[in-house]
Amino acid sequence: MLGPEIERLIQLLSRLPGLGPRSARRAALQLLKRKEALMLPLADALATAAATVRTCSVCGSFDTQDPCGVCADERRDPTILCVVEEVADVWALERASAFKGRYHVLGGTLSALDGVGPEDLNIPSLVRRASDPAVTEVILAMDATVDGQTTAHYITDRLAGANVAISRLAHGVPVGGELDYLDDGTLTTALKARRPV
Amino acid sequence: MLGPEIERLIQLLSRLPGLGPRSARRAALQLLKRKEALMLPLADALATAAATVRTCSVCGSFDTQDPCGVCADERRDPTILCVVEEVADVWALERASAFKGRYHVLGGTLSALDGVGPEDLNIPSLVRRASDPAVTEVILAMDATVDGQTTAHYITDRLAGANVAISRLAHGVPVGGELDYLDDGTLTTALKARRPV
Repeated sequence: MLGPEIERLIQLLSRLPGLGPRSARRAALQLLKRKEALMLPLADALATAAATVRTCSVCGSFDTQDPCGVCADERRDPTILCVVEEVADVWALERASAFKGRYHVLGGTLSALDGVGPEDLNIPSLVRRASDPAVTEVILAMDATVDGQTTAHYITDRLAGANVAISRLAHGVPVGGELDYLDDGTLTTALKARRPV
Repeated sequence: MLGPEIERLIQLLSRLPGLGPRSARRAALQLLKRKEALMLPLADALATAAATVRTCSVCGSFDTQDPCGVCADERRDPTILCVVEEVADVWALERASAFKGRYHVLGGTLSALDGVGPEDLNIPSLVRRASDPAVTEVILAMDATVDGQTTAHYITDRLAGANVAISRLAHGVPVGGELDYLDDGTLTTALKARRPV
């Protein structure tokens, strides 16, 4: 009874992460109630971003320019590459202003279960970039998950021939974390990797 | 560093109910990764719905036709009006196939706190519709909240002159509800409104 236009809108909205069928209906109603203020601007923002945002041919991140802003920025240290799984991780590190080098986005992790092999990820281009004599260090910043760590191991092997230092993010107690709420794996790792004060 | 196009997209997405800043970023990344399958269709669905969906001039619901499908449907009982707060409530009742009459959408509730008075809601048009001799019953299907019930009381007063029966939804234990988990108000109401078996 909703009409095909509204049904289609709800169906597409429900495919966004974080929105299920119920919240997609609520979102559709909110949009229909605020056509000028929200619905038309969102339609325009989607079309504009789809038309202008592209994948950086160097690092695999998203930007309206290619190479992306980070890769094109002369002030970023070209000797250090930070390898991440997804563009979301680039955004997270940039928000933290934690890193001043360049990025390399794999586009996922190796996963036997999902049939993702090395050829499905941006690993050949990483090997190429790491072989550049200008690059001295590669930081593996994968998630601390089984797939993430498997991918990190694989990349370490693949970069064995390149003349670069390979490092990974420290694992341990998150800042602000309470021991009582941490899982056993994190506690064990943090204890093993304890540092002299 | 994200570029204005992506920033604007995230900002608009974060205004949807159910999406905060973090999930809006995740949604934006998902959209950028799936331009053809999701982003462009969603942009089109939004623009199409914005252009075609309008508010029914009779009941205040949304549809691509005016009067809406329910108001135009000759098989729906024209003697009973079901008054609801929002279009979402029409959708919920239609999903339940619980009602075969016509609807009237108020567009909100009276709220002294938010400065919503009777003139801000579709109450004058309700009084007009209820005065039609063909209408014999008005069902007040407001939320069981303070604002909802205040609005129901106000409408009852306003319809005192019209020759219609006024009813409201039953309050009590929801179907499938366990007494142990119900609030005191619901239990008290359910007990007071007990029915002979």
